[in-house]
Amino acid sequence: MKTPPISRFAVPDVADLPKDVRERIEAVREKSGFVPNVFLALARRPDEFRAFFAYHDALMEKAGGLTKAEREMIVVATSALNNCQYCVVAHGAILRIRAKNPFIADQVAVNFRKADLSDRLRAMLDFALKVAARAHEIDEADYEALREHGFSDDDAWDIAAIAALFAMSNRLANAFSIRPNDEFYAMGREARA
Amino acid sequence: MKTPPISRFAVPDVADLPKDVRERIEAVREKSGFVPNVFLALARRPDEFRAFFAYHDALMEKAGGLTKAEREMIVVATSALNNCQYCVVAHGAILRIRAKNPFIADQVAVNFRKADLSDRLRAMLDFALKVAARAHEIDEADYEALREHGFSDDDAWDIAAIAALFAMSNRLANAFSIRPNDEFYAMGREARA
Amino acid sequence: MKTPPISRFAVPDVADLPKDVRERIEAVREKSGFVPNVFLALARRPDEFRAFFAYHDALMEKAGGLTKAEREMIVVATSALNNCQYCVVAHGAILRIRAKNPFIADQVAVNFRKADLSDRLRAMLDFALKVAARAHEIDEADYEALREHGFSDDDAWDIAAIAALFAMSNRLANAFSIRPNDEFYAMGREARA
Amino acid sequence: MKTPPISRFAVPDVADLPKDVRERIEAVREKSGFVPNVFLALARRPDEFRAFFAYHDALMEKAGGLTKAEREMIVVATSALNNCQYCVVAHGAILRIRAKNPFIADQVAVNFRKADLSDRLRAMLDFALKVAARAHEIDEADYEALREHGFSDDDAWDIAAIAALFAMSNRLANAFSIRPNDEFYAMGREARA
Amino acid sequence: MKTPPISRFAVPDVADLPKDVRERIEAVREKSGFVPNVFLALARRPDEFRAFFAYHDALMEKAGGLTKAEREMIVVATSALNNCQYCVVAHGAILRIRAKNPFIADQVAVNFRKADLSDRLRAMLDFALKVAARAHEIDEADYEALREHGFSDDDAWDIAAIAALFAMSNRLANAFSIRPNDEFYAMGREARA
Amino acid sequence: MKTPPISRFAVPDVADLPKDVRERIEAVREKSGFVPNVFLALARRPDEFRAFFAYHDALMEKAGGLTKAEREMIVVATSALNNCQYCVVAHGAILRIRAKNPFIADQVAVNFRKADLSDRLRAMLDFALKVAARAHEIDEADYEALREHGFSDDDAWDIAAIAALFAMSNRLANAFSIRPNDEFYAMGREARA
Repeated sequence: MKTPPISRFAVPDVADLPKDVRERIEAVREKSGFVPNVFLALARRPDEFRAFFAYHDALMEKAGGLTKAEREMIVVATSALNNCQYCVVAHGAILRIRAKNPFIADQVAVNFRKADLSDRLRAMLDFALKVAARAHEIDEADYEALREHGFSDDDAWDIAAIAALFAMSNRLANAFSIRPNDEFYAMGREARA
Repeated sequence: MKTPPISRFAVPDVADLPKDVRERIEAVREKSGFVPNVFLALARRPDEFRAFFAYHDALMEKAGGLTKAEREMIVVATSALNNCQYCVVAHGAILRIRAKNPFIADQVAVNFRKADLSDRLRAMLDFALKVAARAHEIDEADYEALREHGFSDDDAWDIAAIAALFAMSNRLANAFSIRPNDEFYAMGREARA
Repeated sequence: MKTPPISRFAVPDVADLPKDVRERIEAVREKSGFVPNVFLALARRPDEFRAFFAYHDALMEKAGGLTKAEREMIVVATSALNNCQYCVVAHGAILRIRAKNPFIADQVAVNFRKADLSDRLRAMLDFALKVAARAHEIDEADYEALREHGFSDDDAWDIAAIAALFAMSNRLANAFSIRPNDEFYAMGREARA
Repeated sequence: MKTPPISRFAVPDVADLPKDVRERIEAVREKSGFVPNVFLALARRPDEFRAFFAYHDALMEKAGGLTKAEREMIVVATSALNNCQYCVVAHGAILRIRAKNPFIADQVAVNFRKADLSDRLRAMLDFALKVAARAHEIDEADYEALREHGFSDDDAWDIAAIAALFAMSNRLANAFSIRPNDEFYAMGREARA
Repeated sequence: MKTPPISRFAVPDVADLPKDVRERIEAVREKSGFVPNVFLALARRPDEFRAFFAYHDALMEKAGGLTKAEREMIVVATSALNNCQYCVVAHGAILRIRAKNPFIADQVAVNFRKADLSDRLRAMLDFALKVAARAHEIDEADYEALREHGFSDDDAWDIAAIAALFAMSNRLANAFSIRPNDEFYAMGREARA
Repeated sequence: MKTPPISRFAVPDVADLPKDVRERIEAVREKSGFVPNVFLALARRPDEFRAFFAYHDALMEKAGGLTKAEREMIVVATSALNNCQYCVVAHGAILRIRAKNPFIADQVAVNFRKADLSDRLRAMLDFALKVAARAHEIDEADYEALREHGFSDDDAWDIAAIAALFAMSNRLANAFSIRPNDEFYAMGREARA
């Protein structure tokens, strides 16, 4: 088969994009060696692009609190629940790299209950998946369960907010058929030290 | 009962907020006569506040395409699916006002299939609710169904993106127990002309 | 759009109805100032009309046990679960009036877990919604949970029976597309004393 | 094990019941040779007893329209969906007798799609089960599907109303743990002529 | 209606089957007085026939551990969950005979929670149905619950494996429309001693 | 964390196993360079081991009909639906190798609707997933849909039977917590020619 397009919507030429959007795209190309397709797909709407990545960075790149591997683990687990190919493949790669663990992304994506996780991380994902699947039933007992594993109230906000952000992101990627770049599949799969 | 708090997380003093956040809050207070609680609840995290409202404005306030009433209708229908009290009550008020129809918000929230809607709007909500509930099954036939009712490809993007944004927003409001302001309940309920 | 009909089935002329049915309809018209559409829709079948309202009155109008506001709250919560526009709109109005609370109906309809309710009322609705959604899993532990909040065994019967009666009523109203009267939407919305 | 009681609620002495309730019970005992437990369980509340059997008779015993076997088939199929032991066992017996078919009740209860049914009856059960499971999605296309198999509009009302009545009845029997009489299990199982 | 065929796939002539398959079929005919249709349906593929019955016998006919009635009870409960007419009807008959109880199969098929069962058997079926419906959530707490009712680890394996085998068998019977033999319906229904 | 065990049940010493079971295990070790854990986990019960692999080989190793890559694709898609870590990881590796495609297993596991598949393979997986998720609704229209894509009746049997076999296998692996070997994760991930 011919490789399907990056998105069901036409993707703009990077050269035609507003300067800040173009610079953000060039920065990621430099850092990663390729441009993840979600950047190109969302660039069709510069204002939404800016808001999306501002939100992403505020939650995924900030200092303190959850480790970056923990945040990616939330993304992979909730994106798998939502059957989002782009997010599971792309963030699975990042998770493998950040956790320095070639197995964890596939384990978490298929069934986090059977993954090699501490009780603390299992509690984190229980909360994240409840936000993803039935946030209307979240109550103080759920926050208490996090506290028992040492998560602060601000950690709880982070877990909920990351699950919520990817509830949006998964729906965009699925509705727009955003295709993961081939590069992601093999990243971070080298054997564990 | 005592009135429950605005959010389960402590809410900052407006006076202590960064200038741009404060100004945004004062602007909405001026326009509406009160500060919708979601502004106060999210202000606890200024970067997330900025990204959230930037995204909101990019989709809900832009010119062209769907009418503002149509956009609010998408919000109410998908937020009801997600059992989000804040969004159904607050955006239900805005929908009544923008549609100049005191009945439509309650109809759409309980069962849009029985609401007083044209076939065109029913198709719009069918698409929006599929994005909200099972975006992984969206395919070209869904876009074709929209086209048959005169929606352009960019309208389809808007419908999907609004449903996705409120998939996030509903989860935040539910996880944080953000309480709708009392003011919203009665807004726009005066009898139809 | 033109206002849709009261029901997808033709509605009889009140003048042509059997005397007892006609008198019941005239009595409600006198009391409420209008005839709720469910009376007209069901009058097409006088025997079913009589049985329906006899059942309704036996559970909703009897003395003792649950307050009338509590009974209406069960109706609104379970009817929302069943996406029944007629019952949520009509009984939402009655609930606002009986509870003297302009907010409670919308709160309970969207997500009773986030409504301004005592633990006792939350337990009442937990039981009612379990009867509505998965009565086959009800067991003695559910009755015990009610007892802990001071509900007698006969109160438990009432909660279950009201949830069951509206399981029927919701299905009739949805299958027949019974339209709520415009009058209901604004009833009981005046600000709290 | 000891035989469990007729209902989790105490059952009244027939001798102590109001005359009309007692006579109805004695009539069924004479006709069937035993008193089906639902009569005893509901007799605890005479007004509800009267309304319940009035509704039942209005739909299940009236002349014309669907055959009695067809009505019982709707009861068995929807009660199985609701996991209602009393209704599947008791009405399964009546269905076998009325249909003069010792197999049909078990077939319909387990999977009506694999039962020995004409296309007409399959369409009837498709409609009934949609009313039972998701009445909020019923629309004119569902009525049209019935019409194509020769069902009149009043037949459609009957199918919907029977499914709705047993939505109530199943919830009562499950919530109250009403036990089917031993007599029902073997009734109507003699080989086909 | 004409009796539907044994299976939607053509069924081979017993005389044409490999010797071992033919002998197995003749043995069951001798023992039961008829050939259960699943033997004929699967004989179309002798290798699969051999593997299926080898698996079946390894779990259902072995000595020790669960009683044969208990094993059949697992089959009936999980097959009812999967709406498998063949397995509920055929194994319901065997359950009635092995348990010497004419009621138990119908009770377990419709709602095992309301069946005449000891707490021990209820725990067994809770585990079996969790394996059937959501095995990915099974964890050590589920094994512990079995242990509390005196089940050994090998009993737990048996319960899980029987539920898993019939997860397969139910899907084959449903996909192939394998029809239960008329003989099964009435077996074991004679009144309790 | 310490690596969790191969299975929650003790695994036998290969040296102690019956000769045929031992030989089968040694043969796979020779061919693959390691013993996939499912062989060790099931060897605890030699009769079940024999039946399981006999069934497996009858469907997965036979000549003709579906290609081996197509069969593995059915396994991966249905095992992902069932959240079976062992089967998705192990058969994902085999699928990558047999399809000579490093991307296809992850695509199919997360959302086959967005995978790089021909319409024919999409129809194959639609059928397989319907057997896995709701076989009781399979009817002749589903077989007809396969025929339109060139699948014979025996191909349809194979698709259904593979989905059914892994319905069993997934439940065993989940209930027993069978751990995929580390070797599987990286197999077949080398870039496409």
